[in-house]
Amino acid sequence: MAQGYAGTILHVNLTRGKTWVEEPTDAFYRRYLGGQGFVGYYLLKNVPKGADPLGPENVLIFATGTITGIPVAGAGRSCVGAKSPLTDGYGQADVGGFFGAELKQAGYDAVVVYGRAAKPVYLWIHDGEVEIRSAEHLWGKTTLDTQEAIQSELDDTRVRLAMIGPGGEKLVRYACVINDLRHAAGRSGLGAVMGAKNLKAVAARGKASIPLANPDQVRELGKWMRDHWKEKSWGMYDLGTNGGLLDLSEIGALPTRNFQDGRFEGAEKITGTTMRDTILKGREGCYACPIRCKRVVEINDEEYQVNPIYGGAEYETVGAFGSNCGVDDLRAISKAHELCNAYSLDTISAGMAVAFAMECYENGLLTKEDTGGLDLSFGNAAAMVEITRQICEREGLGDLLAEGPRRAAAKIGPGAEMFVIDVKGQPFPMHECRTRHGQALGYAVSPTGADHMHNFWDASMDREPLGEDLQSLGVYEPVPQTELNADKVRAYTFVTNWQWVHNHLGHCMFIPWSRDQIVDLVRGITGWNTNLWELLKVAERGVTMARVFNMREGLSRADDVLPPRMRMPFVTETINEKPVDPEVLDENLSTFYGMMGWDPETGRPTRAKLQELDIEWADAQLD
Amino acid sequence: MAQGYAGTILHVNLTRGKTWVEEPTDAFYRRYLGGQGFVGYYLLKNVPKGADPLGPENVLIFATGTITGIPVAGAGRSCVGAKSPLTDGYGQADVGGFFGAELKQAGYDAVVVYGRAAKPVYLWIHDGEVEIRSAEHLWGKTTLDTQEAIQSELDDTRVRLAMIGPGGEKLVRYACVINDLRHAAGRSGLGAVMGAKNLKAVAARGKASIPLANPDQVRELGKWMRDHWKEKSWGMYDLGTNGGLLDLSEIGALPTRNFQDGRFEGAEKITGTTMRDTILKGREGCYACPIRCKRVVEINDEEYQVNPIYGGAEYETVGAFGSNCGVDDLRAISKAHELCNAYSLDTISAGMAVAFAMECYENGLLTKEDTGGLDLSFGNAAAMVEITRQICEREGLGDLLAEGPRRAAAKIGPGAEMFVIDVKGQPFPMHECRTRHGQALGYAVSPTGADHMHNFWDASMDREPLGEDLQSLGVYEPVPQTELNADKVRAYTFVTNWQWVHNHLGHCMFIPWSRDQIVDLVRGITGWNTNLWELLKVAERGVTMARVFNMREGLSRADDVLPPRMRMPFVTETINEKPVDPEVLDENLSTFYGMMGWDPETGRPTRAKLQELDIEWADAQLD
Repeated sequence: MAQGYAGTILHVNLTRGKTWVEEPTDAFYRRYLGGQGFVGYYLLKNVPKGADPLGPENVLIFATGTITGIPVAGAGRSCVGAKSPLTDGYGQADVGGFFGAELKQAGYDAVVVYGRAAKPVYLWIHDGEVEIRSAEHLWGKTTLDTQEAIQSELDDTRVRLAMIGPGGEKLVRYACVINDLRHAAGRSGLGAVMGAKNLKAVAARGKASIPLANPDQVRELGKWMRDHWKEKSWGMYDLGTNGGLLDLSEIGALPTRNFQDGRFEGAEKITGTTMRDTILKGREGCYACPIRCKRVVEINDEEYQVNPIYGGAEYETVGAFGSNCGVDDLRAISKAHELCNAYSLDTISAGMAVAFAMECYENGLLTKEDTGGLDLSFGNAAAMVEITRQICEREGLGDLLAEGPRRAAAKIGPGAEMFVIDVKGQPFPMHECRTRHGQALGYAVSPTGADHMHNFWDASMDREPLGEDLQSLGVYEPVPQTELNADKVRAYTFVTNWQWVHNHLGHCMFIPWSRDQIVDLVRGITGWNTNLWELLKVAERGVTMARVFNMREGLSRADDVLPPRMRMPFVTETINEKPVDPEVLDENLSTFYGMMGWDPETGRPTRAKLQELDIEWADAQLD
Repeated sequence: MAQGYAGTILHVNLTRGKTWVEEPTDAFYRRYLGGQGFVGYYLLKNVPKGADPLGPENVLIFATGTITGIPVAGAGRSCVGAKSPLTDGYGQADVGGFFGAELKQAGYDAVVVYGRAAKPVYLWIHDGEVEIRSAEHLWGKTTLDTQEAIQSELDDTRVRLAMIGPGGEKLVRYACVINDLRHAAGRSGLGAVMGAKNLKAVAARGKASIPLANPDQVRELGKWMRDHWKEKSWGMYDLGTNGGLLDLSEIGALPTRNFQDGRFEGAEKITGTTMRDTILKGREGCYACPIRCKRVVEINDEEYQVNPIYGGAEYETVGAFGSNCGVDDLRAISKAHELCNAYSLDTISAGMAVAFAMECYENGLLTKEDTGGLDLSFGNAAAMVEITRQICEREGLGDLLAEGPRRAAAKIGPGAEMFVIDVKGQPFPMHECRTRHGQALGYAVSPTGADHMHNFWDASMDREPLGEDLQSLGVYEPVPQTELNADKVRAYTFVTNWQWVHNHLGHCMFIPWSRDQIVDLVRGITGWNTNLWELLKVAERGVTMARVFNMREGLSRADDVLPPRMRMPFVTETINEKPVDPEVLDENLSTFYGMMGWDPETGRPTRAKLQELDIEWADAQLD
């Protein structure tokens, strides 16, 4: 068993063109683990208070997790973080693909980027070495062209890239970071932070094998999953993440026409089944994963050409550009998806920006004069694609929508704010919360704004029989799905804390490992005799660091609220639907804060909680 | 796998002569587990605020834990609880032996006793049946005579008893409950509560096998321990709990002459080794345990006759009647031990009462007039035995000392309070805290007053290398043993929470199970897919219920303090010794309260913490 587990973190100052290496202690790794833990730590330590997210003071972190790059299913994920240009607070996005594993094999657990390059650059990290190289010739290029150019000049087609397209360069506030053309660190606008730093890409290539304290243990777990994944994850292989869209529409929980409705009449046309039976050309997965939940589509007809190199739309993308824009044409949705991957836009926020514009248009707040003649009615597939392209290029109305619905509404004028469906400036993902009030709380308190990658609540958790996975997190009796009370808040607090664990580990939530197996994986990798309690304590530390960061940057209880639409019923009545009463939500905010060890009034993490989490140093940040 | 895990709890109202049965839900068991969890629950629910501990309103609980009675090593423990006549607050004592296992096999996980019988009674619980039987003929009898009489009248020598001798009948405030003659639920004065209820004994006999969700898993764990206990616990077999007394004296941490010193010149004469080589006649263990750490001694000489039926002195007893009274005669110590077991006195508190009296005597606060001619100088072995006998009988000075040092000092007059070494009225066990300030905090915040059965801090936890057991509870760097700061408080909080788990499970801390194995045991017994996190959450709930009870009964921050002696150095200087600064302790109290989710000023559990722990009902108790 290894005496200590510790790796290496790369720091890069783009302003000065300097790089240096940090070798933290075993205890540092045990406290922060990786991924989100590193993001929270380096943001709090290194971003000055009040920094402009698009200025040189912001810090951009690419962080792998403990499991990232280990040869087991689900180990393909990593994390990107920075102060968000969308929320002006804690920004974090988790992403699959191959880049994270490659970065670790290239010798680094994380890259922390400071400053701003005078001219476009990219980082070339290989076998422990790092170079800051010119990217002037790449500026303006799509992700595909960028990847081809870099792989060609480095003469290695196995170089993996985290990069931006023109959307990031043009500082679209919800630009994302694209890994390997098909995997997006979508939320929080981190692609714009890359753009603002003149950082076109991080290229990684490494042949080092990641040291394992107990290789046999890890190998056995990997083998177990190879033998067992089909039992639980076949549906994910067959239909991707979009297998349940029709069901969602049927129970009235499918975001439709900018969250006006929960049912979409065209749902059947855009499901995973329809995709499989029409445009699907292949299935792909992330590093070491057999499940292959990612789609590859190809379209070559008169109206739409879609290049399979960019993969295919996941559920979030289909919802955002499809039902949520009233669009039932998978080809148009796929085209919008391709644009977003080529230009590096978050498909969720982009689709939500389009839907916002459509509702403004239908209500006369935007006219054909504003849209350059486009008929932005809900359901107009071609217009949806065109306005998405304009956002990518910041052309015409797209320039305004590139700022995100909240900032756009402020410019469009009174009334438009009613059509903004976001929290803290980050648009909703494709998960209704009026049908499950646990998710309402989740959106309100997520440090990144409305986000489903760590503050997710599924209505199945509100129903008997409660699985052992829930019970062993202290959820012994379900609470009706449209109720919010202390019992629901408790369940939410414990369950989401477990979700945060994944984002520290660099591990995909879709993989049907048991919690015991995940603990065993971490043991096998690190040599620590760790346990679930310790991992959950790390996650609590991570969430609390994010909260400290947000409060330091001026976010407060007043930002932990839902948009006006959540107070209203759906246009078409559905079952299990109840508007979210802001007063009830507000009461439960206090409960949540208190349960987290934060001040029940303000949500400020108490000094005692920071001490308990061994991050008392963060207390001074809130003076 | 069983759908649900739930047993049966017996309630007995002695005033009305009524019994009834409760069958709680699986969720109830999951929330409170057993042992201490049941004590906290039933005390809060059923003892009226301000109840006289020796009045009929007090409630007395005999509770087994989840593991109690399972055929694996360490499963012999159970718990007794009531409002303590010693502290007027939360009273709890854990005990080994056979009674707990027998009670469970007789059909009940716990017995909750209300009211007061008009005349002495005992309970006879067998195979799911219960009888309240007269004990008038047993009143005044020693535990041995009581056991013989009851086994004889029930015609079954395998009846197991939790009982009191005359010490409990006479309401000695630190009377204990004796199981099977040789095992004491020692602390908190619970034997006096039995006496006050006119309850002489609880007799149990059952042949039911305890249902196991996964018998194979439990069997395998049992087998593992049978094969492995010697590797780690041979010393405990060989020398008992008293194997380390000489080492303690050498490092200056052996309570000597009422905690005036840390070294005892006669230490070698009273160690486990000396006992083994002189008076030891046998070794015994608890239910299903191969380790046999308990001693059996026999003495037949002119001065002392000691009956082996009462076992033999453990470390605590040897320290209390030995070094702490300046006595280096194992025969006298063994005689005092026999008296305590026959009369049902806590050997720790009894020894501490004697040492208190000796220091008063040496300082002229007690004279030969008070002692009836006895020379109560430290080191007088015969006087130590005689005054112990007087306490047992409440004769002469013994009647005053039977009230405990704190109450006795108030009657003896000014100056005597300086010789009281207790917290909340409960005398210190034989663990110095000036040499390890983690224990200083432990004594101050223990809900039962100075106690080592759940708020224990060992100096080895302050030194490199920190074991994986500590690290996996978030203790990554040691803090010097005489320092108290937030890092130490955090470590203390997490480590003692794990200790509390044992008292919920009815499981002995001496058994070298790993945490994983204990979790597996609970899984095998209950069928729950539980985990360490869930068990620690239950423990946190238990500690917090105890805190609520104490605050409800009027205990406050002002009671979380150490006696004056802890501010002073030892008479003889020793290494690693530092008086405990009350201001430093007080600062760290705030930290501890905060880390527990209690108000940092008052130590009142916050409503949010009670909600998080799913015991919001307890909030109203603090209005």
